Amino acid sequence: MKKIGFIGLGIMGLPMASHLLKAGYEVIVYNRTMSKAQPIVEKGAKLADSLRELARESEAVIIMVKADAEVEEVILGNNGILEGAKPGFIIINSSTISPKTSIRLAAKTAKAGVEILDAPVTGSGVQAIEAKLTFMVGGNEEVFKRCMPLFTVMGKQAFYMGESGKGSYTKLGNNVMLAINLLAVSEALTLIYKAGIDPEVFLQVVGGGGARSGMAETKIPKIVKRDYKPAFGTAMLAKDLALASDLARELQVPVPVMSTVKEMVQIAVAKGFSDEDVCSVIKCYEEWAGIEIK
Amino acid sequence: MKKIGFIGLGIMGLPMASHLLKAGYEVIVYNRTMSKAQPIVEKGAKLADSLRELARESEAVIIMVKADAEVEEVILGNNGILEGAKPGFIIINSSTISPKTSIRLAAKTAKAGVEILDAPVTGSGVQAIEAKLTFMVGGNEEVFKRCMPLFTVMGKQAFYMGESGKGSYTKLGNNVMLAINLLAVSEALTLIYKAGIDPEVFLQVVGGGGARSGMAETKIPKIVKRDYKPAFGTAMLAKDLALASDLARELQVPVPVMSTVKEMVQIAVAKGFSDEDVCSVIKCYEEWAGIEIK
Repeated sequence: MKKIGFIGLGIMGLPMASHLLKAGYEVIVYNRTMSKAQPIVEKGAKLADSLRELARESEAVIIMVKADAEVEEVILGNNGILEGAKPGFIIINSSTISPKTSIRLAAKTAKAGVEILDAPVTGSGVQAIEAKLTFMVGGNEEVFKRCMPLFTVMGKQAFYMGESGKGSYTKLGNNVMLAINLLAVSEALTLIYKAGIDPEVFLQVVGGGGARSGMAETKIPKIVKRDYKPAFGTAMLAKDLALASDLARELQVPVPVMSTVKEMVQIAVAKGFSDEDVCSVIKCYEEWAGIEIK
Repeated sequence: MKKIGFIGLGIMGLPMASHLLKAGYEVIVYNRTMSKAQPIVEKGAKLADSLRELARESEAVIIMVKADAEVEEVILGNNGILEGAKPGFIIINSSTISPKTSIRLAAKTAKAGVEILDAPVTGSGVQAIEAKLTFMVGGNEEVFKRCMPLFTVMGKQAFYMGESGKGSYTKLGNNVMLAINLLAVSEALTLIYKAGIDPEVFLQVVGGGGARSGMAETKIPKIVKRDYKPAFGTAMLAKDLALASDLARELQVPVPVMSTVKEMVQIAVAKGFSDEDVCSVIKCYEEWAGIEIK
């Protein structure tokens, strides 16, 4: 494969597409907001007039858009991917969506002879820029192997998780863990801060033991600087927890802790922190506890 | 200081005392269950007949017992430490107890001219054997500095957290975070397992991103092997969460997530998992979800 389409040139998508371009792929882009495509077009990417044209001119397409509805529209919509894709065409959906949607899309694309992988990533903007994303992939294993060169250009590793939907399931599990770990940081930090402990010394202490976490390492430094610039936005996490909640109900798995965490993230959304980093949930605790962590 | 008393020769205490002995300290031991002292006495530690005698013959004592009541009994009880301690004697309490008890004990020992540090540790039996514990210490800073050689013999690092009680506060914060991270693993793992994802591949995926945690790294391998041998016992965690819950109420910090986690650990206790590792809480989820993770 040499000609790769890329749809969704946001914080994640733009650096991912740029890595492909740098690696020598012919990159064809399309973005709803056309101005977002400008930086990469200047570097040599080709701009398609429509999704259909993009599909017609490429062998595979990577989709990195917001949520289920956008992914469905891009693939199945009027003038969409499926209208331009020839049999054998490969769709790599790296957006985090419901496993059910991934499975449904796989059934629909299969009818057109088009392959689809659900291939969400862990890592945020920084990891996308550094090509250090991790892909978790569901779909046909042979197709996964053929796409491996693309994954290794955009990320550091890719794991095959099983048939269609399994990438999406894994991503939801990952984000459930991330969200709960974030609230672990929020509640522990509020407690020790109000008890008079220095948050940065606390981070050093927990960093050495069983309580260590990626959330502690990345969010405590942001919290003490009161830096809520989004590495991962609150609205996106709220969306993922809603999907995980649906999944838990379908699978009949009781998740009392996740449910409480989901409500806390929902409180952060209600307080107006949707477009801030997920660590802005700490502001709810600060208000309740009457403190300002710094 | 050359003559160090050691009280509480359990999973943690025995290797800690052994490191002091190997480093050339004269170690005087006392244990309620005298047979537990046998291994270290054979290596050259001196056995005291009472806590009073132990205090009389040493310059400092390290206490590593179960909970608040045991620590108070050891220090303030009949024939206890305070009866034998000369002014200037140093008590290092490494047991995890309530900050309030640490503060109260400091006030009482001060009247006898005896110094006390609350110096709980992160790390379990393995870290104790490898001398890789982390100490978080409250009390007089000058006394902390004098005890630094002891901490570095038994552990890899020691942090000064502030006046008496601050070590205990830090430890509770640490264990709140650990407990919530443990439940993050439990709920995410149950979800992805029931969705058909391999738990060990899942661990590899989360290990590379923001959802990584010490609990995921140490407990997922135990869970898939159905190994509930205690590195950290469920009853001990339940005790710590009860202390943290008291602390949250005193400090007026709402902790909805920790409260749910505390109830889950309490369910594990109710199911009879007190003496098993904290990761045995997964068995509650397995029963509810009708699965067996392996």
